[in-house]
Amino acid sequence: MPHPYVLGIDLGGTNLVAGAVRADGRKVVGLRSEPTRAERGAEKVVRRIVAMAKAVRSQLRRELPGAELLGVGVGAPGPLDTARGVVLLTPNLGWVDMPLRELVAEGTGLPAELDNDANCAVLGEWWQGAARGARHAIGLTIGTGIGGGLILDGRLYHGASDVAGEIGHTTIDTEGRRCKCGNYGCLEAYASGPAIALRAVEALGAGGPSLLPSYVGGDLGRITAQTVYQAAHDGDELALEVVRETAKFLGAGVGNLINVFNPEVVVICGGVTLAGERLFLPLEREVARRAFRPAVQACRIVPGELTGSAGVYGAARVFLDRRGG
Amino acid sequence: MPHPYVLGIDLGGTNLVAGAVRADGRKVVGLRSEPTRAERGAEKVVRRIVAMAKAVRSQLRRELPGAELLGVGVGAPGPLDTARGVVLLTPNLGWVDMPLRELVAEGTGLPAELDNDANCAVLGEWWQGAARGARHAIGLTIGTGIGGGLILDGRLYHGASDVAGEIGHTTIDTEGRRCKCGNYGCLEAYASGPAIALRAVEALGAGGPSLLPSYVGGDLGRITAQTVYQAAHDGDELALEVVRETAKFLGAGVGNLINVFNPEVVVICGGVTLAGERLFLPLEREVARRAFRPAVQACRIVPGELTGSAGVYGAARVFLDRRGG
Repeated sequence: MPHPYVLGIDLGGTNLVAGAVRADGRKVVGLRSEPTRAERGAEKVVRRIVAMAKAVRSQLRRELPGAELLGVGVGAPGPLDTARGVVLLTPNLGWVDMPLRELVAEGTGLPAELDNDANCAVLGEWWQGAARGARHAIGLTIGTGIGGGLILDGRLYHGASDVAGEIGHTTIDTEGRRCKCGNYGCLEAYASGPAIALRAVEALGAGGPSLLPSYVGGDLGRITAQTVYQAAHDGDELALEVVRETAKFLGAGVGNLINVFNPEVVVICGGVTLAGERLFLPLEREVARRAFRPAVQACRIVPGELTGSAGVYGAARVFLDRRGG
Repeated sequence: MPHPYVLGIDLGGTNLVAGAVRADGRKVVGLRSEPTRAERGAEKVVRRIVAMAKAVRSQLRRELPGAELLGVGVGAPGPLDTARGVVLLTPNLGWVDMPLRELVAEGTGLPAELDNDANCAVLGEWWQGAARGARHAIGLTIGTGIGGGLILDGRLYHGASDVAGEIGHTTIDTEGRRCKCGNYGCLEAYASGPAIALRAVEALGAGGPSLLPSYVGGDLGRITAQTVYQAAHDGDELALEVVRETAKFLGAGVGNLINVFNPEVVVICGGVTLAGERLFLPLEREVARRAFRPAVQACRIVPGELTGSAGVYGAARVFLDRRGG
């Protein structure tokens, strides 16, 4: 008998990704991605989720005609109520109290489960990626914002009201930079993609020589974190310094997590991993300087392995953990 | 048949406290405390632990002649290896790889279990004190240093190598004050007892008028956190400002914990609770300003209730959780 499958859907701020994950996690079929296009409205986003689910399902039927589809797991931006399957509030998509689980279940005709997108990405990396085999794994997802997920004693930890893991909004400098959340000195205000780009633009404004403007035709507003990594790769000293500073700020945040959780792995997901060793080597040094030695010795810091699909794996796993028997 | 009891022993930096805790946690018999007097050497400390255990046991026999004593739980400064029952390193006591569990078991003739002192205090508050009934509770112990303990899903969380919960050494200011641990900007460097006293002395040095010198005969070196709370209680503006600043720093640390753990309770133990509402009201305000609203709404911030005995309750509970069937 063929293995059963679970649909995993990852509704990210940038991309909507879907695929059919084999229940043992060893294989994904029909993986596909498209831009989220939030501006098209709430119902339309749900309709596109359902359409993608159908496309994945069709491909699964073609490739593995006998494969059973158990259900669908969805990763969505939070905060959300996992028990009720409701997205409480998503500024990017303009959603308030959106019963996404029910809508997806109706649209697909499959039982559905819902969890936070960062939780799903970290769960995916723990199940099949860079954090495999760890009893305790902490993950950061670094993109437009910084999210987090906590695997403690081999299970996703949700906290009292499903909002655990807001690592991006932990303070690393009480009098520091203003964050979008209104607070000052959040990790996200230093080390998210837009924060990295902003620090590069500030450094350029301070007059440092750099290749960066030549990558964006002189339009500094077009500099992104990716531009900074590219310039660092090409040996640009200003960009290299921005990456080193990023490592320093991330090192404070990751050091805090290591001191508090004493995990076996910290896995860092998202575009920031493109910076490679230029980021990870000084990050490890900063963590070693800041955190408690026995906790540092117990912990690996690794980039995510499932680029683009971690959230799909994790969403499928969420379904399996709640319904998979 | 009378209830069985468990000896709880709390080997703190300042006091050695012992008592016999009824296995249902409802009663403690023979509670006693004496200064730790670390200078007397490792063997002598163990001998005094054993002597206190015997004294508690005698009192239990007098008061409840038929009560069975199941064993002994010990809370000790860490880092330690709970599985082997060994204190790895305790600078204050000069211990390295001290097999404390075995020594206490030999000395008392009872089975013994060992855990970190801050873990025991928080576990005690969760079992019988201010954090009763919470599924997830985070505790801080604020004294000479700042320790922490994590109750997650109703169980003490230890991490990969028994060093989870080092909340005092999380960074709240990347470029901040030097901490005893060698790092910069640790919470402990701002909000421990000695740090509170130091900030008061610095404020006096900056020339503020204050009653504080009159409490210590003009010898500023004798100012402690307790002196600051007393002066704040008496309306001294400089001391009040030091307490408000303490609330601000603690608020950053507690806000981080709330954003990461989304607990039902944060319990704050130790002498700092003497500052009362002068500390807790601005602390709550700062947390509300910094942390994520749904996480703040889910969480109470409370002072510990079991002053002086939380560690004894928790140490007894450690024994029960590991051996109590």
